[in-house]
Amino acid sequence: MPAAARYGDPLATLGVLNDVLRLQLERRSVRKFTTRDVTDDELTALIAAAQSAATSSNLQPWSVVAVRDPARKARLAALAGNQSFVAQAPLFLIWVADLGRAHRLAQRAGTQVEAADYLETTIIGFVDTALAAQNAVIAAESLGLGSVFVGAVRNHPEEIAAELGLPPRTVATFGLAVGTPDPTEEADVKPRLPQAAVLHHEQFDAPAADAHIEAYDKRLSAYNERFGLRGTWSDRVLTRLAGPASMAGRHRLREILERLGLPSR
Amino acid sequence: MPAAARYGDPLATLGVLNDVLRLQLERRSVRKFTTRDVTDDELTALIAAAQSAATSSNLQPWSVVAVRDPARKARLAALAGNQSFVAQAPLFLIWVADLGRAHRLAQRAGTQVEAADYLETTIIGFVDTALAAQNAVIAAESLGLGSVFVGAVRNHPEEIAAELGLPPRTVATFGLAVGTPDPTEEADVKPRLPQAAVLHHEQFDAPAADAHIEAYDKRLSAYNERFGLRGTWSDRVLTRLAGPASMAGRHRLREILERLGLPSR
Repeated sequence: MPAAARYGDPLATLGVLNDVLRLQLERRSVRKFTTRDVTDDELTALIAAAQSAATSSNLQPWSVVAVRDPARKARLAALAGNQSFVAQAPLFLIWVADLGRAHRLAQRAGTQVEAADYLETTIIGFVDTALAAQNAVIAAESLGLGSVFVGAVRNHPEEIAAELGLPPRTVATFGLAVGTPDPTEEADVKPRLPQAAVLHHEQFDAPAADAHIEAYDKRLSAYNERFGLRGTWSDRVLTRLAGPASMAGRHRLREILERLGLPSR
Repeated sequence: MPAAARYGDPLATLGVLNDVLRLQLERRSVRKFTTRDVTDDELTALIAAAQSAATSSNLQPWSVVAVRDPARKARLAALAGNQSFVAQAPLFLIWVADLGRAHRLAQRAGTQVEAADYLETTIIGFVDTALAAQNAVIAAESLGLGSVFVGAVRNHPEEIAAELGLPPRTVATFGLAVGTPDPTEEADVKPRLPQAAVLHHEQFDAPAADAHIEAYDKRLSAYNERFGLRGTWSDRVLTRLAGPASMAGRHRLREILERLGLPSR
């Protein structure tokens, strides 16, 4: 019953189910890996899946840097919130929103790509990178690999850019640590908000949706207690979004993007 | 040989392959649908898959509005670049980056979520929405459904918000038209850049990557000619990103986000 675990609700079911849906619903973030390497063939398959995602006007505004060198992984781990699993994972993919390729095309053609300077185009870069990366996540699952996203590469985007030699008008959007799941990791499928809290029909109905949060707070608290964690989902959201001090430096993203050549005006 | 079609290169192969990878590599955008409805069970499965994607700090900062009413679909199609397939699709999903839920939680708790006012948090909203939506796309494929993203909902975000009754601090990120593919549609898997143009090892190497663009321009031109289209990929990128005039009004996204309650500072 993958829906029951996904919603932390023994009554949750799906009326249609297949192997792909099962793979998706049973995905969890993996932060402990065995020492087995990710092979070149597996990496190729992950990136081919990523490239198969949709992309706005076929712009393909992203690139990805595959890091396997232990010393570089350790430096990236230090820059990304000191999360040791980044160094432990055999493969760390850094997904890059990339408007530099279009700029270089324009330079060679003696023309301009002024649309690249707008927030809309920065957003396209982040969104298309995310669509691609999620395909890589599902591809990894299908190959028996596990992964976890690392948003903390946005804690120090300029230092990450220097470490990876990123060209102008590119930015590391997030990392993805990939490897074979270590079966000794204590972790499980994390329950999500009831579907009625996020899915609306025809028009948005906030009071009806929000009425389901209380039940979720209880379900997630029960889940978290299994891992010795306290606090409801609502409490955690309020803590995480309290203010700039809760953002690990990322409140500066707008000015950093400008310095990296993505003015996002 | 799904890799050969994906890269427009008869020599492209994968060293590992399975049913999930095949599904991902063979995905194409579908813009012509049969009259068969998407069932409630199918919709539930799509959203459960979407909710199973990773989300930063478990914030779950998105919602989705499922539109089936023909009159509303027609109005949304008119707002989204007059694309008739939006009205023709039995189901149009509008994916919403949603910081309103956190704000309402804060209001009820008598506190603030000031981090929601920063570009970093807007980006988290768009990225997490995209991760979710891509899972829905793959889920749809697994059920024999087809889909196409509609970024043109960002042409008129305020009018879309009014049509859907979106609350403050939310924005429609993109639409997804979903239905059963009409087998008479003339379309195919669109070739992407050679993998060596987007994948870097250890450090970014722009000249080495860009050296593969010329071969891609030829492959995509050959593909496009099958559908009576002209112009290389490079030409199309330069035209699309030429300047504000090529953005269908979306150069105003930053000020519109501010008015919708997402100041993105």
